[in-house]
Amino acid sequence: MTDFETRLSATADDIADTLSSLLPRIETDGVRCAEARLLEAMRYGAEGGKRLRAFMAVETARMFGIERYNALRVGAAIECIHAYSLVHDDLPCMDDDDLRRGRPTTHRKFDEATAVLAGDALQTMAFTILADPATHENPFIRCELVAALARASGPRGMVGGQMIDIEAEKTSEPLSLAETSRLQRMKTGALIEVSCTMGAILGHASSTNRRALEYYARDFGLCFQICDDLLDATGTEEMVGKAVAKDADAGKATFVDLLGLDGAKERAAMLTEQAKAHLSPLGERADTLRALADHALYRQK
Amino acid sequence: MTDFETRLSATADDIADTLSSLLPRIETDGVRCAEARLLEAMRYGAEGGKRLRAFMAVETARMFGIERYNALRVGAAIECIHAYSLVHDDLPCMDDDDLRRGRPTTHRKFDEATAVLAGDALQTMAFTILADPATHENPFIRCELVAALARASGPRGMVGGQMIDIEAEKTSEPLSLAETSRLQRMKTGALIEVSCTMGAILGHASSTNRRALEYYARDFGLCFQICDDLLDATGTEEMVGKAVAKDADAGKATFVDLLGLDGAKERAAMLTEQAKAHLSPLGERADTLRALADHALYRQK
Repeated sequence: MTDFETRLSATADDIADTLSSLLPRIETDGVRCAEARLLEAMRYGAEGGKRLRAFMAVETARMFGIERYNALRVGAAIECIHAYSLVHDDLPCMDDDDLRRGRPTTHRKFDEATAVLAGDALQTMAFTILADPATHENPFIRCELVAALARASGPRGMVGGQMIDIEAEKTSEPLSLAETSRLQRMKTGALIEVSCTMGAILGHASSTNRRALEYYARDFGLCFQICDDLLDATGTEEMVGKAVAKDADAGKATFVDLLGLDGAKERAAMLTEQAKAHLSPLGERADTLRALADHALYRQK
Repeated sequence: MTDFETRLSATADDIADTLSSLLPRIETDGVRCAEARLLEAMRYGAEGGKRLRAFMAVETARMFGIERYNALRVGAAIECIHAYSLVHDDLPCMDDDDLRRGRPTTHRKFDEATAVLAGDALQTMAFTILADPATHENPFIRCELVAALARASGPRGMVGGQMIDIEAEKTSEPLSLAETSRLQRMKTGALIEVSCTMGAILGHASSTNRRALEYYARDFGLCFQICDDLLDATGTEEMVGKAVAKDADAGKATFVDLLGLDGAKERAAMLTEQAKAHLSPLGERADTLRALADHALYRQK
């Protein structure tokens, strides 16, 4: 493993531990509580994944000398939102997926009602974690974190993007490149971008540094989505850990449809360079974020 | 209308206006945004209702001289959580209801996917509203509000209660009175209780006053649920605005089953007196909350 991969995997492990300690306990003195099924489904839905968003928050906070303990709490809150969105997006009335991260989706492992509630509760947990003084002693910072995460995951961000995506499937006319870009910036980009923002909030970053990080995250997020579409078009289910060629089958506009295979690869490479260039004000301490941009690009090769 | 009813209805109108101004705009300069369907469903899901929880927060805050504008924002956030829980609870995989507040439920008016997303986004909006400096200038207060609402609506509160309720339907053994009381305290009681708590947080209430208000709200919440079960057992669909005799049909444990009709009525009356008694440290300024307790009791007569 490269240094970068070691670091990515160590953060994924730490996020798993942080979530495990923050999510409600299923048993007290060996007795299961009545709502145990909900708590099991929350833990199940929040397990696995590369924890990319948390990693971005943790690495950004590290540049500003923030304690890892505090950064991991922020990362865990972001992963709660990400996990809730996956649990709900996989539901039969949404994308109707059976497989996620190589395992049965939450509604297949449990049932639909439990999956709806587990997603709901994971969203709530994100705000419980951020509002807690243990995340940061300064309540200004905590409020800024809550506001930023809510904005990114709300109707003008992640959830809005998911709505547009579902609507687009129903219409015969495919989305334009501009419309697809806006959709993806909301659906997946907003949460990726806010991960850097939240690291910067935690680190009292200057407005120049914060802007640099947000531009980086914006280009990275779009690149990430293009690479995802490339994987969906060219990867195998085993490799990806979820159903592939699904988006194209569902008539969803993907960047591969819009740009072609080669065009999409070129665009991803261009965005990677552009993302890294935005980080210049931060100097060498942003090297891990640069390595992350390269990593996202190379995973589709 | 009595003074109390005038006040209740004025607050319901103000909450509708506050929500209307806080929820995202569907059109900008006459152009519908791509996520318009989501925003319409959010507004639809948040419409109607007596706004009892908001009223409790607003009336509590008023006792401590808080500006109505700030109290209404807190009330609107609570109603976002309440509305999201109704939208999700009505889904086919949950209670499968077609009627709510006398109109088609959100998934019947729109579709299931839109209802899931609208519920998700309404939850997010609650925290967006509370974290905003417009709610209170002091970030300590805002964080306390976020933490209190998240705790009450999360896995150990509202969502946990809904899980226990769904689980209970599947088992042949009915819940005991103690189990049903815990379920209802989580499912409906937690949000009612936190409405007074949030008014008290906004008003920097002393710990004595805050405790008095929470005890009041706890007894009121239980009384409210018993009255709801009485309405379900004895009311008509037209009167109640949603399907009746559903809970009994679904094999859910109701307080009417557990206590009998007369026993449930007696318990409700006893809880109303007890709730009002808790308010004695607050003197006359708590008269509206006393009237509210009487109102909840009498609506089932």
